Amino acid sequence: MFEHFADRLAAAVQARGTAAVVGLDPVYERLPHEYRVKEAGPAAAVAALERFCRAVVDCVAPLVPAVKINSAFFEAYRAEGVAAFFGLIAYAHRRGLLVISDVKRGDIGSTAALYARGHLDTSGIDDIDPQSVPDAVTLSGYLGESSVRPFIQAARRAGRGVFVLVRPSDPGADEVHEFGGPTRFYEHMAALVRRWGSDPALIGRSGYSCVGAVVAPKDAASTVRLREQMPATVWLVPGYGAQGATAESCRPCFRPDGSGAIVSASRSVIYAFQEARFRGRAEEDWAVCVSQACREFAADIARLAGPAG
Amino acid sequence: MFEHFADRLAAAVQARGTAAVVGLDPVYERLPHEYRVKEAGPAAAVAALERFCRAVVDCVAPLVPAVKINSAFFEAYRAEGVAAFFGLIAYAHRRGLLVISDVKRGDIGSTAALYARGHLDTSGIDDIDPQSVPDAVTLSGYLGESSVRPFIQAARRAGRGVFVLVRPSDPGADEVHEFGGPTRFYEHMAALVRRWGSDPALIGRSGYSCVGAVVAPKDAASTVRLREQMPATVWLVPGYGAQGATAESCRPCFRPDGSGAIVSASRSVIYAFQEARFRGRAEEDWAVCVSQACREFAADIARLAGPAG
Repeated sequence: MFEHFADRLAAAVQARGTAAVVGLDPVYERLPHEYRVKEAGPAAAVAALERFCRAVVDCVAPLVPAVKINSAFFEAYRAEGVAAFFGLIAYAHRRGLLVISDVKRGDIGSTAALYARGHLDTSGIDDIDPQSVPDAVTLSGYLGESSVRPFIQAARRAGRGVFVLVRPSDPGADEVHEFGGPTRFYEHMAALVRRWGSDPALIGRSGYSCVGAVVAPKDAASTVRLREQMPATVWLVPGYGAQGATAESCRPCFRPDGSGAIVSASRSVIYAFQEARFRGRAEEDWAVCVSQACREFAADIARLAGPAG
Repeated sequence: MFEHFADRLAAAVQARGTAAVVGLDPVYERLPHEYRVKEAGPAAAVAALERFCRAVVDCVAPLVPAVKINSAFFEAYRAEGVAAFFGLIAYAHRRGLLVISDVKRGDIGSTAALYARGHLDTSGIDDIDPQSVPDAVTLSGYLGESSVRPFIQAARRAGRGVFVLVRPSDPGADEVHEFGGPTRFYEHMAALVRRWGSDPALIGRSGYSCVGAVVAPKDAASTVRLREQMPATVWLVPGYGAQGATAESCRPCFRPDGSGAIVSASRSVIYAFQEARFRGRAEEDWAVCVSQACREFAADIARLAGPAG
């Protein structure tokens, strides 16, 4: 019997004392010099990305409960990148982190079952390192319940979770998500995601469902309304740091007891060594900068999250 | 200088005399016996999928202008499956087919650029077999223009195309796509996709944009309205065959001159040998059944499409 994903997440948040999650979005051109090797070609680039990401994982593992790894940055290198992606999931697990696989897949039911097999389920496939299976995935639910159902079933069977896109961080997404009225499209998606996760068999001891949502903080009033609309839904909150959200703007994403959300930051942590405030530090001190930025991020979010995670 | 995607597609449709496209959605359990090998494990399964798909490509290459290859069925096998996916794209190209890569990716702008690099652009990466780059990809545009823009730019640079989801075939998607009123969500997405592709620099000699749409036929009246709303948009029409659409229900997807759409069928062609009407045939005749089903599908759609493709 597996422990429920939301309970495992709450325990990890409590253990680290923060709901901060570090996003790994590695771009070769932004790596520290020591990783930008002389050999050309995609294999060398992938190896460099993987070594850098492992070093970042080493920095952040003692400080945060989870990492979120974005598939796009690895898929850019096709099969070799995909192999590195799953290898990195396994490495982060071995360092004691929970892992959210940021894949945003979405296709109709019969096809969704295959995506679930590759990204969350793997029960039909032998020879898979169990450590390389993430604890949760992000999903695009715009093809309806059948597009997320195979993932939810896999999540339920194995104590894993999903985070379905409800309100993206990019203002460019507003042309889609602010559609309609008086009920907006993002509110409609919130209602669907709440319903998809409402079966009591999907709810953990913490009271939260294994069906979570990706919800960026916009104006406080609409965020508060969404939070009330989805009381049993864990939120994965993007947009902190490089995308402009602050701990204060993330506050309404948490329930009043400080539970129910995790906040992700990517570029502001993993490329901290390129920020103006660290100018003057030697490039080889990059890991010190990443650790310091992660510690500050973790502390900033710790002020928001209560003991219930 | 590359030829425009819509012009290349129209020429291919004219050359084969049909706008029928075969979808490759291979599932190991449904392969003919001769492909279900004794060795266990994902590597053997991937090799079997790839050999089967190449044989299907051999059957359909003389009959249709293009194949659509769905990534999910290969991603189920992680890196090994992804390698087979790109190998199959190259193989179909070498057999003279256009290739649509059905990946339905969608993420915010900076991340979308990386997805584009992996799936359509590849201009930043050496050592890529140019034949393994598809002619077009399917996209999920629900994160707004910034999520498709990097793909459109890549398409424009290299004579390739995109098909953005507007109206999926699965009735289960209606809970999302019928949202709103009087304007429904799918109509809103149609208006956005039309706008994203309306720059004159994106329009080919045929009058069509390299920004196409995935539009399933529902009731004729709403399909006719959508067709009028998107006069310069090529439609990739799913749902024929196993999903229940007929040539007649696909008719309103074409413009009155018979141009502007391609129709895709997957399971009803590639698993034709498992259909009741072929019962009694020896299993080793599976390729004969696939060829016959493809020929009938191609002829059925040929009645709809005019010479302009």
